[in-house]
Amino acid sequence: MKILALDSSGLVASVAVIENDNLIAEYTMNHKKTHSQTLVPMLDEIRNMIELDMETIDAIALAAGPGSFTGLRIGSATAKGLGLALNKPVIAVPTVDALAYNLYGSTSVICPLMDARRNQVYTGLYEFVREPESTIYEMKHVLEQCAVDIQEIADKINELGREVIFLGDGVSVFAEKLADIIKVPYSFAPACCNRQRAACVATLGQVLYEKGIVQTAAEHAPDYLRLSQAERERAEAQKNV
Amino acid sequence: MKILALDSSGLVASVAVIENDNLIAEYTMNHKKTHSQTLVPMLDEIRNMIELDMETIDAIALAAGPGSFTGLRIGSATAKGLGLALNKPVIAVPTVDALAYNLYGSTSVICPLMDARRNQVYTGLYEFVREPESTIYEMKHVLEQCAVDIQEIADKINELGREVIFLGDGVSVFAEKLADIIKVPYSFAPACCNRQRAACVATLGQVLYEKGIVQTAAEHAPDYLRLSQAERERAEAQKNV
Repeated sequence: MKILALDSSGLVASVAVIENDNLIAEYTMNHKKTHSQTLVPMLDEIRNMIELDMETIDAIALAAGPGSFTGLRIGSATAKGLGLALNKPVIAVPTVDALAYNLYGSTSVICPLMDARRNQVYTGLYEFVREPESTIYEMKHVLEQCAVDIQEIADKINELGREVIFLGDGVSVFAEKLADIIKVPYSFAPACCNRQRAACVATLGQVLYEKGIVQTAAEHAPDYLRLSQAERERAEAQKNV
Repeated sequence: MKILALDSSGLVASVAVIENDNLIAEYTMNHKKTHSQTLVPMLDEIRNMIELDMETIDAIALAAGPGSFTGLRIGSATAKGLGLALNKPVIAVPTVDALAYNLYGSTSVICPLMDARRNQVYTGLYEFVREPESTIYEMKHVLEQCAVDIQEIADKINELGREVIFLGDGVSVFAEKLADIIKVPYSFAPACCNRQRAACVATLGQVLYEKGIVQTAAEHAPDYLRLSQAERERAEAQKNV
């Protein structure tokens, strides 16, 4: 099967096409341009380069949230448009899960950290487990993706007592703080595997697709995981009336 | 520091730019086009997209072999041209090492398999080790990259007695044979991390650069690791005279 994948959940814009166990193409950029300037041109670039007939795609996977609200909307709008036009299902891959998938096969606990401002992170805890007779690792949730204070995820990691690898754009923001509060052995993922990649969204999307976890393009909506600033402020204002 | 990386050692063509711990851009393609049609246009594409001033690059890393002889020559010629024009050093990253780097942080032994025809593979054995006080894993050679018969690497793996993860284009060629001859637990890397990526070349290139392992563009030559078919046939013919 062939999956087209998009990730515009953070600063990174990334597009990939996989076919079964093969990455056919991937284009990733972490630059100051906005996703509305990059995502569709990048898709068009690889479509031309690999002479992709869009009708041959089986599903569109995307990093469905959490993340930058604007980024998620651009990704979802693009996926919905493609899904409606091509009449293909959408696979909503949790952003933090796809980020963790960068460290496939690690036996440490994996902790993605996406800076969510206000001392919060979009995070989760993951481990890769292989059943004795299987030739593939499955990624399991130790803690499902969530928006929490950096101290709260640190407490959970310390409770677990297992070695952890951090990755994501939250690492540079919280590195000093982590040095103070993390009590277990830990390390940081390097440049090749510490940010969003559409190839990870595609690969994990294929796993979800095989479990039947798909949506129609019409059904799909991003999962912001918390209220937007405007919604938060309105709720605050209403509480104070 | 900023590194431009190229990998055209196999069927994959890949170009990436990293700056310290950040992947700025990566473009990877695994399609039937030849590298002479893809590599430089891909580089030009990302150069435009990230508005890259080539003068700001500190070094050019490339997958320097083993691999497809033609692919290696295209990669080396491109790197040498860029290095000479920009007066920047070249970092020759062993192809199989960069391939293994896909599985950063794994505690299994990593065994890349590149199909080298005639029942041979370009392969090696690797492990990731973290010193107690370090926040980064270092990749160590259990067996340096080499061109051997598939049975020979299988024997080495069985001797080691440790769990192994295979990756590379040799997996689909030898999967059935591996099922017969591998006696330790093993698995296969999925689409997002089972082929050459220039981001891995760049990240590992940065490690080598920091150790002073660089060449001038004039010095650089690819490392074929074995004789070409023409050279082999000549040697055979001379032996039989």
